[in-house]
Amino acid sequence: MYFLGVDGGGTKTIAYLLDEESNLIFKNTSGPTNILENGEEVFRKNLRELLYPVLKNINPKDIKSCFGLPAVGEFREDIKILRKIIKEELNIEADTIVNDVVIGWAGGNLARDGIHVVAGTGTITYGRKGNKDIRVSGWGSIIGDEGSAYYIGYRTLNEVSRELDGRKRRTDLTKLIFKKLNLRDHLDFIEFIYDPQKDRRSNIASVAKITYEIAKIGDKKALKILKESAKELALTVTTANKFLKIEKPITVTYSGSVLEKNEIVREEFIKLLAKGGYEVKPPKLSPVLGAVLLAFLNYENNGQKREDFINKLLKIYKEEEKQ
Amino acid sequence: MYFLGVDGGGTKTIAYLLDEESNLIFKNTSGPTNILENGEEVFRKNLRELLYPVLKNINPKDIKSCFGLPAVGEFREDIKILRKIIKEELNIEADTIVNDVVIGWAGGNLARDGIHVVAGTGTITYGRKGNKDIRVSGWGSIIGDEGSAYYIGYRTLNEVSRELDGRKRRTDLTKLIFKKLNLRDHLDFIEFIYDPQKDRRSNIASVAKITYEIAKIGDKKALKILKESAKELALTVTTANKFLKIEKPITVTYSGSVLEKNEIVREEFIKLLAKGGYEVKPPKLSPVLGAVLLAFLNYENNGQKREDFINKLLKIYKEEEKQ
Repeated sequence: MYFLGVDGGGTKTIAYLLDEESNLIFKNTSGPTNILENGEEVFRKNLRELLYPVLKNINPKDIKSCFGLPAVGEFREDIKILRKIIKEELNIEADTIVNDVVIGWAGGNLARDGIHVVAGTGTITYGRKGNKDIRVSGWGSIIGDEGSAYYIGYRTLNEVSRELDGRKRRTDLTKLIFKKLNLRDHLDFIEFIYDPQKDRRSNIASVAKITYEIAKIGDKKALKILKESAKELALTVTTANKFLKIEKPITVTYSGSVLEKNEIVREEFIKLLAKGGYEVKPPKLSPVLGAVLLAFLNYENNGQKREDFINKLLKIYKEEEKQ
Repeated sequence: MYFLGVDGGGTKTIAYLLDEESNLIFKNTSGPTNILENGEEVFRKNLRELLYPVLKNINPKDIKSCFGLPAVGEFREDIKILRKIIKEELNIEADTIVNDVVIGWAGGNLARDGIHVVAGTGTITYGRKGNKDIRVSGWGSIIGDEGSAYYIGYRTLNEVSRELDGRKRRTDLTKLIFKKLNLRDHLDFIEFIYDPQKDRRSNIASVAKITYEIAKIGDKKALKILKESAKELALTVTTANKFLKIEKPITVTYSGSVLEKNEIVREEFIKLLAKGGYEVKPPKLSPVLGAVLLAFLNYENNGQKREDFINKLLKIYKEEEKQ
């Protein structure tokens, strides 16, 4: 039996295939697979590009698969539609189709009870206890995604706009943002935000890095935005656990640029959650290996085999981390 | 001499032409003329459609004109570029080109010292004292436009999203919004917000009407959003006057759906400003007649003639209001 894990995303899609001895025999990357954002044709094309090279040599019946895809849970009959497309394009049964935050959780805490927070350009939180699970936040940049890089960027640019037109007292924030973004005046500022050449969402999210740099050199407004973002992210965790009621200590894992790279947000996030008995930990496996693990678990849940399989995955992950 | 006023917008564009006896001899409407949003070709086409029917019969040299257009002040060399296009398309000199908020002010307070707030889908505030003028807010829906219909809609939908996923306690707000928007569940909610068939900005702004209805029947969260929006709008006025220092009483006029139709926002706005010696009044003339007035004033500023001209404009406006 082979185990296939797919980690879909708005930018790229990753696939890993393990053979019966749990050896990684194939990995590949293709373009985005958010069916709502990129459309069905792009979704189909990137699935084909991702998996054609390996599927021609393997009997589809020998594959147990898990697809972690964006947009799952966000439109009607999602699983049915996605399963049909996967069958048409790849001739395999998609045994498990979940939102990509679920494979983040599975990789993060080896599919054990716990809560996983994705905080990159967008944000979404997923928690599981036994068969109970819950999603919090993740409504997208238009309505929410509080605590994400988009949110940090938006809050920062909003603050600058208020300083520029006099609604707030001019502080170093505007001076520093203008310098870092290489802006001369308010026309450059408007052009940066509304530039039709750039993807607006990633463009605004890209400011979050600068907010972090500025906060590190002591800017109080930038620091406040980051601390409030951490508070928003922590709120998604405590909200998830209000429903799940996992016993303490509650393991919280994370992925995405904000919690991985922004130490101010991460430390505040850890501090806020520590009070409630939450233990924040870096993920044990990448999301794509989380998908492989779910493909395995949904096929085989024998305790001993499970531990062996997980050990193999941890070894694969460790070796990749070294590279 | 003829006086031409043009009121451009993101949805439609209006033109009025008055003859030397200040009679309204022509009016016409065409599509949007936001050169940044709609592009140069649409801008050119709608200008032609708007004014071709009348310009073929009049000597261009006999026309004094004022164009109030969106996007003025938002890109480099705006006036130069727009003047060139107007000359190419219509063969007339655009004597005055200003942002459409400026003709709102001119119509609102007959081009006298004061502050004008536009609060429709977006929002922007403009104030003038003598030769000094200032713009506040109006950075667009992505960054700000606090107090606009978009802002009210966004704030309302954000609140619903937090109630839906448990970050906030479920109140009647979600129940009422779901009922008014005819939504069954969170999938309908996501579909409403991200529907690619609809213009996202106007779609979200359209929720502001519902927030108003719900606030009227006593919903506390909706009421809070409206009061905070009024506070944001009032802040733009006091910010403008921090710079202008107009003597009290300071006349504040307004246009746009939020301040025209939402009585809760308008009453709170009036109340907040009353404390500082601001007198909020409905506009004396429509923006397009404000444009005609500016076309006249930039040509002729003789006191007596000015009063006669204004009286004619007020009469035209009154008659139109009756229809």
